[in-house]
Amino acid sequence: MEIRKPIPVADAVMHIMNHVKKLGAETIVLEQSIGRVLAEPIVARHSVPPFNRSPYDGFAIRAEDSKGASGDNRLEFTVIGEIGAGYVGERPVEKKEAYRIMTGAQIPTGADAVVMFEQTVETESGFTVRKPFETGENISFKGEDAAEGDVLIVEGTLIHAGTIALLATFGYAEVSVYQQPVVGVLSTGTELLEVTDELVPGKIRNSNGPMVKAQLTRAGVPFKEYGTTKDDLDACTKLVERALEETDALITTGGVSVGDYDYLPTIYERLGATVLFNKVAMRPGSVTTVAVLGDKFLFGLSGNPSACFTGFELFARPALLAMMGNRAPYLPHLKAYLAEDFTKPNPFTRFVRAVWKLTENGLAAAPAGFNKSNAVSSIARGNCLIVLPSGTRGYSAGDEVDLLLIGSEQGAKDWVL
Amino acid sequence: MEIRKPIPVADAVMHIMNHVKKLGAETIVLEQSIGRVLAEPIVARHSVPPFNRSPYDGFAIRAEDSKGASGDNRLEFTVIGEIGAGYVGERPVEKKEAYRIMTGAQIPTGADAVVMFEQTVETESGFTVRKPFETGENISFKGEDAAEGDVLIVEGTLIHAGTIALLATFGYAEVSVYQQPVVGVLSTGTELLEVTDELVPGKIRNSNGPMVKAQLTRAGVPFKEYGTTKDDLDACTKLVERALEETDALITTGGVSVGDYDYLPTIYERLGATVLFNKVAMRPGSVTTVAVLGDKFLFGLSGNPSACFTGFELFARPALLAMMGNRAPYLPHLKAYLAEDFTKPNPFTRFVRAVWKLTENGLAAAPAGFNKSNAVSSIARGNCLIVLPSGTRGYSAGDEVDLLLIGSEQGAKDWVL
Repeated sequence: MEIRKPIPVADAVMHIMNHVKKLGAETIVLEQSIGRVLAEPIVARHSVPPFNRSPYDGFAIRAEDSKGASGDNRLEFTVIGEIGAGYVGERPVEKKEAYRIMTGAQIPTGADAVVMFEQTVETESGFTVRKPFETGENISFKGEDAAEGDVLIVEGTLIHAGTIALLATFGYAEVSVYQQPVVGVLSTGTELLEVTDELVPGKIRNSNGPMVKAQLTRAGVPFKEYGTTKDDLDACTKLVERALEETDALITTGGVSVGDYDYLPTIYERLGATVLFNKVAMRPGSVTTVAVLGDKFLFGLSGNPSACFTGFELFARPALLAMMGNRAPYLPHLKAYLAEDFTKPNPFTRFVRAVWKLTENGLAAAPAGFNKSNAVSSIARGNCLIVLPSGTRGYSAGDEVDLLLIGSEQGAKDWVL
Repeated sequence: MEIRKPIPVADAVMHIMNHVKKLGAETIVLEQSIGRVLAEPIVARHSVPPFNRSPYDGFAIRAEDSKGASGDNRLEFTVIGEIGAGYVGERPVEKKEAYRIMTGAQIPTGADAVVMFEQTVETESGFTVRKPFETGENISFKGEDAAEGDVLIVEGTLIHAGTIALLATFGYAEVSVYQQPVVGVLSTGTELLEVTDELVPGKIRNSNGPMVKAQLTRAGVPFKEYGTTKDDLDACTKLVERALEETDALITTGGVSVGDYDYLPTIYERLGATVLFNKVAMRPGSVTTVAVLGDKFLFGLSGNPSACFTGFELFARPALLAMMGNRAPYLPHLKAYLAEDFTKPNPFTRFVRAVWKLTENGLAAAPAGFNKSNAVSSIARGNCLIVLPSGTRGYSAGDEVDLLLIGSEQGAKDWVL
């Protein structure tokens, strides 16, 4: 039997990331840019606010005209018109004059302070004030939020709702983003049935294919479906060859162990692909294999569903996000205390699907399926991975552990474990 | 001027959630169910594993035949065939016989233990072992992961990649999910330009509309676009009326303050809508107004972009998720220490867009734009909201604060702040 040498998870991640080639840029319309990655920085194309504006509903005055006002000496202003948001004053404000002005409206020429409604008493032709106002009082100045030319968001940032607001503000009707990789998904295994099939002896339905496609969707990466294939070396080789012509990366599930029908290693050899690693010191997923052929990736994930899930999140996801230019392609990292004992020691790093929760004692992480009876549902119930380093002892409830968040829009710049 | 009475944020949330009517169920195909909410529990339709199976590549034997084996007394087995994953043995295993068996394959009749390859020495017609095996050794038993009939995931759960795997396993080619609300988005304000427009004096581009649509997309809620409208009472009333006929909820931005052209309050009155609240003790977004007309919601978000963003996440998002059946509609809650002083006291609860990060001292939250120069980009840079309760003092770096996570797939069942 072939003996494989396991490498640490961090090394496996680095081997992959060192082979990532960022894809080129393309220009798309703003509405379609959610989930894409900026290939250009967001620059303030104009000052924000673009003009001096009123942050309140009130009256725009010349501050000097309020000098000397007091409770005993209310000073009166004449209102010469109104400026709603979106309008501009028709003429400059002169001595003892005021424009009624609405939130967001441009301060009229001549005026240099805003008096809020509640600071006034109405009169027939205007209002009075009981205190002096300073130059600039209650004014949002042009450029105070951002000055024209400021780089506000760097290239390589994921576009989400907040980013969209900024792009819209500056008139980025089109935006330059990195191209997305096209990823093929192929499930291998003679035991695999379709989701629509009835169970028959010895067979199970293919859950890895639909799961990986959902993981890709969650990561914002488009895919091409290559279905399921039996463990047939020649047929499978042809399918992988074709898929590699049509995609930037191919994710296969199954066929990477050392069984008689685990053909992926042979296929990599036939194609002349370079295997980056074929054994990782982790559970589950130690047989995860990643190969490259030119700039194209072959992610050989395990056929075991939880190993497949973990292999995708740890290895395929950051590579694909980095291909589409994302500078923060890793799962976010938190610390928590372990909510239950995990007594089984392991020579490999263990990734446990878990649920994190804020408790009175801080962040707690409870495995979503340590008990065998929960094994199959743990993949659906977890919202994070507990990372338990390899060692000769188990872990106790209360031990501090590392967590990697699943299903989070934000990413981390570095792999820290 | 109208005096509004501010209510606490928690009360505002409860007023809204008490009016939510869950939508009906519909059946859709599995591939389209990502991001939807289960209207039925996921039940184990069969045992998992569905049959006794081998967790390793090795040989299936009768344990009793290995009795007495030792280093000095290796016992030999004859291999009568091979069972790859997806196949079944052709005949029962008899005395001193074995099937070569692959990971995931069904244990053949008669066999009750699996010997791993590395525990054997090959012979001409089979292999020898040097230790006895126990009944059940190295066998994954039918039903040990889940027993037929087990409720694995409850109704009201968001469908994500892990859920998809479980649904596929049990042959849920179609799945019953809650209907999605259709949400209208209408930006009001005479000052609003389109993203494609050049700036002109007194005007700004509409960033709230695109942002809210992106927030809806992130929450998995479809929308109908109603564009922008000037502050024209009659035109705006007609548009709101039409939108309410076509949608389950209408989100407007702007027009909810007490300025001369803030027409939404008047429109609610004209329509006969019940205003749940029109002032919340929060910054930004104190003017956020929510009204209901029958089962339909009118979310009147502020025209200020950060208030609009926050109002959506705190009020519209949980209501819409609850309409589509999600039992965990709130933003997840964490605690962190404040990375910077925030000295300005406030009589209202303050929601500050911030970036959380794990540091040596635990989770830190740094405001994404306390400084005015960052105000406009903070909406694009934050990944959470810091919640600073109202009070007469400010906050210091190191103070423990509450965080609400933005852009997280998981949700929280309860509003805890």
